[in-house]
Amino acid sequence: MNFKGVYRILGFVVGLEGVFFLLPALVGLIYKEYEGVLAYGVTAAVCVLLALFITKVLVKKDSVAKGFYGKEGFVATSLSWILMSLIGAVPFRVTGDIPNYLDAVFETVSGFTTTGASIVRDVEVMLHCNLFFRSFTHWLGGMGVLVFILAIMPMAGGSPLSLMKAESPGPTVSKLVPKAQKTAIILYELYIALTLLEFLLIVFDPSINVFQAICHTFGTAGTGGFGVLNDSVASFSDYVKIVTTVFMLLFGLNFSFYYLLIMKRFKEALHLEEIKWYMGIYFGAVILMIADLAIKGYGLGKNLIAVFFSCASVMTTTGYTVADFGEWPTFTHVIFFTLMFVGGCAGSTGGGFKVARILLLVKQVGRDVRKQIHPNRITTIKADGKAVSEEVLASTNRLFITYVIILALSTLLIALDGFDFQTTFAAVMSTYNNIGVGLADICVGDSFAMFSSTSKVVMIFDMLFGRLEIIPMLLLISPSTWKK
Amino acid sequence: MNFKGVYRILGFVVGLEGVFFLLPALVGLIYKEYEGVLAYGVTAAVCVLLALFITKVLVKKDSVAKGFYGKEGFVATSLSWILMSLIGAVPFRVTGDIPNYLDAVFETVSGFTTTGASIVRDVEVMLHCNLFFRSFTHWLGGMGVLVFILAIMPMAGGSPLSLMKAESPGPTVSKLVPKAQKTAIILYELYIALTLLEFLLIVFDPSINVFQAICHTFGTAGTGGFGVLNDSVASFSDYVKIVTTVFMLLFGLNFSFYYLLIMKRFKEALHLEEIKWYMGIYFGAVILMIADLAIKGYGLGKNLIAVFFSCASVMTTTGYTVADFGEWPTFTHVIFFTLMFVGGCAGSTGGGFKVARILLLVKQVGRDVRKQIHPNRITTIKADGKAVSEEVLASTNRLFITYVIILALSTLLIALDGFDFQTTFAAVMSTYNNIGVGLADICVGDSFAMFSSTSKVVMIFDMLFGRLEIIPMLLLISPSTWKK
Repeated sequence: MNFKGVYRILGFVVGLEGVFFLLPALVGLIYKEYEGVLAYGVTAAVCVLLALFITKVLVKKDSVAKGFYGKEGFVATSLSWILMSLIGAVPFRVTGDIPNYLDAVFETVSGFTTTGASIVRDVEVMLHCNLFFRSFTHWLGGMGVLVFILAIMPMAGGSPLSLMKAESPGPTVSKLVPKAQKTAIILYELYIALTLLEFLLIVFDPSINVFQAICHTFGTAGTGGFGVLNDSVASFSDYVKIVTTVFMLLFGLNFSFYYLLIMKRFKEALHLEEIKWYMGIYFGAVILMIADLAIKGYGLGKNLIAVFFSCASVMTTTGYTVADFGEWPTFTHVIFFTLMFVGGCAGSTGGGFKVARILLLVKQVGRDVRKQIHPNRITTIKADGKAVSEEVLASTNRLFITYVIILALSTLLIALDGFDFQTTFAAVMSTYNNIGVGLADICVGDSFAMFSSTSKVVMIFDMLFGRLEIIPMLLLISPSTWKK
Repeated sequence: MNFKGVYRILGFVVGLEGVFFLLPALVGLIYKEYEGVLAYGVTAAVCVLLALFITKVLVKKDSVAKGFYGKEGFVATSLSWILMSLIGAVPFRVTGDIPNYLDAVFETVSGFTTTGASIVRDVEVMLHCNLFFRSFTHWLGGMGVLVFILAIMPMAGGSPLSLMKAESPGPTVSKLVPKAQKTAIILYELYIALTLLEFLLIVFDPSINVFQAICHTFGTAGTGGFGVLNDSVASFSDYVKIVTTVFMLLFGLNFSFYYLLIMKRFKEALHLEEIKWYMGIYFGAVILMIADLAIKGYGLGKNLIAVFFSCASVMTTTGYTVADFGEWPTFTHVIFFTLMFVGGCAGSTGGGFKVARILLLVKQVGRDVRKQIHPNRITTIKADGKAVSEEVLASTNRLFITYVIILALSTLLIALDGFDFQTTFAAVMSTYNNIGVGLADICVGDSFAMFSSTSKVVMIFDMLFGRLEIIPMLLLISPSTWKK
């Protein structure tokens, strides 16, 4: 293990977080929240000093260049995410908005992983700088912190792709261009452009102020879901809700789609299989849900926007809410659970298992049946017209199995708290798939505060496992990683 | 497709069922239930005539011998199970004990698949002949109808192993001896011996009469779970409960174990990995559950036998109940769900996903982590010291995926009935894994009667999918099977 290479990345991450702390400090200045300015300012200074110590003293330049590969990439990624959450939690604790440090870590992990599950019962009394930082973590975590570092810093030697591989969601790395750094830059350019567009579309609406519009846009872009109001998005205008619905879906799309559009490769863009399935699953869920609500007499008028909004919010794993869907029928809840699992596209900011993988799973089932009938016919599985290697298929399958095993173990541990089964299962599904909104007892508002400390620790791990897609975290806790 | 070969098997199955109908007819004679005697007698006669028509007229001898392979085996097996359920339901309907034919089919499928989920609210008013036949279907379905046919009839030509493969549970066919027929005979000899032993151990207990002891033993042996009393097993003595616990566990064991014991290959028998895991998971569940009940103050004294019994009943997918564990804490319910999924050993009469497969899934996760660290090291996965082929691993993984997809779809369909989430999920888990006892609203006694007809049809398919382990049923409903 090339420890110095890992330290170097950690140094970058800490330094970057220090720089980013200046943004909430600025927000604090604007709102005259001087305890917040102090908290973020001091933490920022400490971060920068720590970063300098790590990169200048701990790491000797010449020993870094060689031997930074898959294993180092995974370990550096998971350690980075843990470290930046532990540091990011400090201002919440220091300003007193979240008096308990474990809760503050939960909130920060929930932010960076774009989960949006909150232990804050009344967000409206929080400092603006804290609310801003909470939402900003969504934005940063959505596209990825290491992808950001990759975009702005030269990574001499080794394989910088291993970092992207560890942090970017999907069965294969969506390299848009041959160079990893260039890909990272393009991704962030697209991300910033889309974020600005949503902000401009909603900021002039009278139901939302500028501060709310910024935070709300960050939450949409990262598919995070932290609200700045206690009722999440319910009190915003229908216009804002509709724009948000569209943008949640846009941020849940594979960013390759936008790249192809810009490159004027429209035909390829419109034939991306994953996107067809993504839209198909979304509209399928909407139609089924509307039919069920209509048949069961739930009054469609007031629920129509809510259905479109909620399906987009859950499927893209954002987690904003506009209605108490805990009171809707069980059928809609099972659809929500299904959407939670499916999640967004690979190469998007959405969580879940990813549509691209579902596609590979379903296609394999079809192939299995055909194979029983024609045992000697050799068949390859194609995605977007190209054959998918058996190794990608097999690793997708194994990821799914690991996913379910961790899901079951987490449910078992959370069940110790004694909430009813649906609440328990929903809490796990919601944190593990980075959604943030639950069902049953945790449906309206965000009240993960009710869980025990043990459960919060389990959910912190679930959120990290979900965002980093299991393997990097699993590697971190495996003894064989640390053996000589 | 060799249709004649398939017809021939169907002919055997119908004829055999006709012969077996004579047993409940005899029970009817003993209890002077003459409408039952008539119902079973006439149906038996029709079956035998139908069987003769199929084998003598429809099938020409010379066209059968060739071309009976995997595909034909799967299709013959799933068609056999559907056909014998449709026929087996007739006497229930004719005698009026189950006035609705769909309900009668549900009950019969539940019997043959050894599920034990019942739509009968008051079993104590049913005719003895019907109760007997209900339990007898468990016994026959447990080890397998086609395995039975294989044991008693010469199967000239083709590959009789394809039938065993389709009907016997597990990732690989547990051929005890090179010849399929001999294997089938040994399996049934062991099965009959164990069944007799349990019967002899409980029949002299004063809390149970001879008729009850017979039915109860059938239900244990097939890991079925139909009770002959409304409170399932609760009113039998502690002695009967303890014997039943042991025998449920014994019937959930891989029958290779007994074969090795008889062959005096003790060392091999005691080193079977699956059995170690099976016992480990069982005792792990028991210990966790006892700890949880003790901590939460549920009074251990009266619950001790209940925990041992219920864990064995759920894990072996039998489904007998001695306590209303619906009132136990959520943690125990999640354990029950986990046990439902795990199920018994491969090559046992138990359902579920099978311990042998869980073992392969878990080992692959371990290998995946190691592979990230040492990408170039080639590692094989071993079971019982022998390398497992990558093809078996891959097909286990794909089966798991298909399992989860069908589970999700079924839950979605059953959710339309609008019961709460736990009840809905439990109903699917219970039927799909062939357990028969649910949780929440369907915990005490068997009351699948409350579900809609649509849900009952879904559950009928779930039970068949579960018992035949998906592929044979999937093949049956796949259009490409029927294409020229």
